[in-house]
Amino acid sequence: MSMTEQQTLQRLAGIIESRKLANGGNPDSSYVARLFAKGDDAILKKIGEEATETVMAAKDARVSGDSTKLLYECADLWFHTLVMLAQYDLTPQQILDELARREGISGIEEKAARKDELRDRDETKKTD
Amino acid sequence: MSMTEQQTLQRLAGIIESRKLANGGNPDSSYVARLFAKGDDAILKKIGEEATETVMAAKDARVSGDSTKLLYECADLWFHTLVMLAQYDLTPQQILDELARREGISGIEEKAARKDELRDRDETKKTD
Amino acid sequence: MSMTEQQTLQRLAGIIESRKLANGGNPDSSYVARLFAKGDDAILKKIGEEATETVMAAKDARVSGDSTKLLYECADLWFHTLVMLAQYDLTPQQILDELARREGISGIEEKAARKDELRDRDETKKTD
Amino acid sequence: MSMTEQQTLQRLAGIIESRKLANGGNPDSSYVARLFAKGDDAILKKIGEEATETVMAAKDARVSGDSTKLLYECADLWFHTLVMLAQYDLTPQQILDELARREGISGIEEKAARKDELRDRDETKKTD
Repeated sequence: MSMTEQQTLQRLAGIIESRKLANGGNPDSSYVARLFAKGDDAILKKIGEEATETVMAAKDARVSGDSTKLLYECADLWFHTLVMLAQYDLTPQQILDELARREGISGIEEKAARKDELRDRDETKKTD
Repeated sequence: MSMTEQQTLQRLAGIIESRKLANGGNPDSSYVARLFAKGDDAILKKIGEEATETVMAAKDARVSGDSTKLLYECADLWFHTLVMLAQYDLTPQQILDELARREGISGIEEKAARKDELRDRDETKKTD
Repeated sequence: MSMTEQQTLQRLAGIIESRKLANGGNPDSSYVARLFAKGDDAILKKIGEEATETVMAAKDARVSGDSTKLLYECADLWFHTLVMLAQYDLTPQQILDELARREGISGIEEKAARKDELRDRDETKKTD
Repeated sequence: MSMTEQQTLQRLAGIIESRKLANGGNPDSSYVARLFAKGDDAILKKIGEEATETVMAAKDARVSGDSTKLLYECADLWFHTLVMLAQYDLTPQQILDELARREGISGIEEKAARKDELRDRDETKKTD
C-alpha cells in the first residue's frame, strides 16, 4: 500500500473537496460533483441506501461464507460519509479525533452506556 | 492528535477485538461485548439506527448552524461499522485498502457510475 | 376479524391519538405516550430501526422459508409510521387517499418513472 | 374517497400481484414488474431508501410547516412495503390482521414493552 505517508481518508477527503462546484468540480464528468450539485438530501439519501446495502451484504455473507461484498458495501458507506462530511465542512480527521477523544473503547462504551441508561430510565414502566 | 488514521482505527479495532467473548470480553461490563453476545442482528440493527441518527443530525445542522451533533453521530456510525467488521472478521485496514484500490476518487466514481448505468439501463422505459 | 365495520388503521390511529400528552396520554404507563413525550427524533429513529429490522427479517425469510417474523416486523414498521403520522397531524386515510389518487398502480408507476427520469437525466454522463 | 382501507390496500395489492413476471408483468413497461425482475435486494433496498426519505421529509416539515412531502414519502414507503409483501407472498390483510390481533394499542404496547424489557435486562450493567 503506497498510502502510508499520504493517508487514505485524508487523501480521499482532499479529492472529494476538489469536486465541490466552488472548487471547479464538474457535474457532467464527476459523480461526486453531481452529488454536490444535487445537495444535502441526495447525499443523505445515499447514507440510508448504503447502510441498507451493508446490512443486506452482511446477511448474505453468513449464507455464502464470503464477505467480499460486505467489504465493498462498507467501503461505499464510508465513502459516502466522506462526501457528507465535506458537504457539512467536516473532515474525517475530526471523526477520528472524536473516536480517539473518547479515550478508547472504554470511553465509547461509557457514552453508549449513558445513552442506554437514559433510554432505560425513560422506558421502565410500560404496563399501559 | 499525533496518531495516524491507520493507528486510530487499528487501535480501536484491537480494543473491539478484545471484547469478543472468545477473547475474554465480558457482557456484564462491556457494551461491545454485549453486542457480540447478542450477535449479528443486534449489530446490524445499530448500523441502520446510527445511519438514521446521522441523517437526522445532518438535517438539524442546517437549521442550527452547528454540526457538533452530526460529528458525534457520524463517529457513532463509524464505531458501529468497526464492531460489524470485527463480527465478520474483517478489518478497517481492508476498507481503507479497498478505498485506495479504487485509485482515488476517479476509480470510485467509475464504480458508482457503472452502478448507475446498470440501473439506468434497467429503468429506461417505464410507460406501463 | 371483527374489524370490518370499524377499520383497523383508523381505529389504531384513534387509539394512538388518545396517547398524545394533550389528550391525557400517560408516559408512565403507555409506550406510545412515551414516544410522544420524547418527540420527533425518537419517533423518526423508530422508522429507521423498524425498516432495518424488516429488511433483516426478509433476508432471514429466504433462508428459513418462514416469513412469520417478516410479517411481525412489517406490522411494527406500519405501526410506527402511524405514530409518526399522528405526531405530524396526518392520518392513515390521507396516505390511502394519496395511494388511490395516483389512480392505481399505473399512476404510482408514472410517478416513480418521473423520479427515475429526473435522476437519469442528472446522472447521464459520469466519465470524470 | 368511498373505498374502505381494506379495499384500497387490496386493490393495490391485486395490481402489484398482476405485475409479477409469472402473471404477465412486463419489465419494459412497468416499474413494479422491473422491481420483481431485479429481485429481493432491489425491493428491500427501496424499503431503506423510502424510510430515509420519509425521515428527511419529516425533518423538513418542521422547518417549512408543510407536511405534503412527508405524506408523499410515507405513501411511497407503504407502497414499496406492498411490493415487498407480494414478493414474499404475504398480503396487506395479514399485516392488518396482525395489528388487530394485538388487540389494539394495549397489545402492541405490551409487545413493545416486552422487547424493551429484554433489551433492558441485557444492557443493565455497562461499567466496563
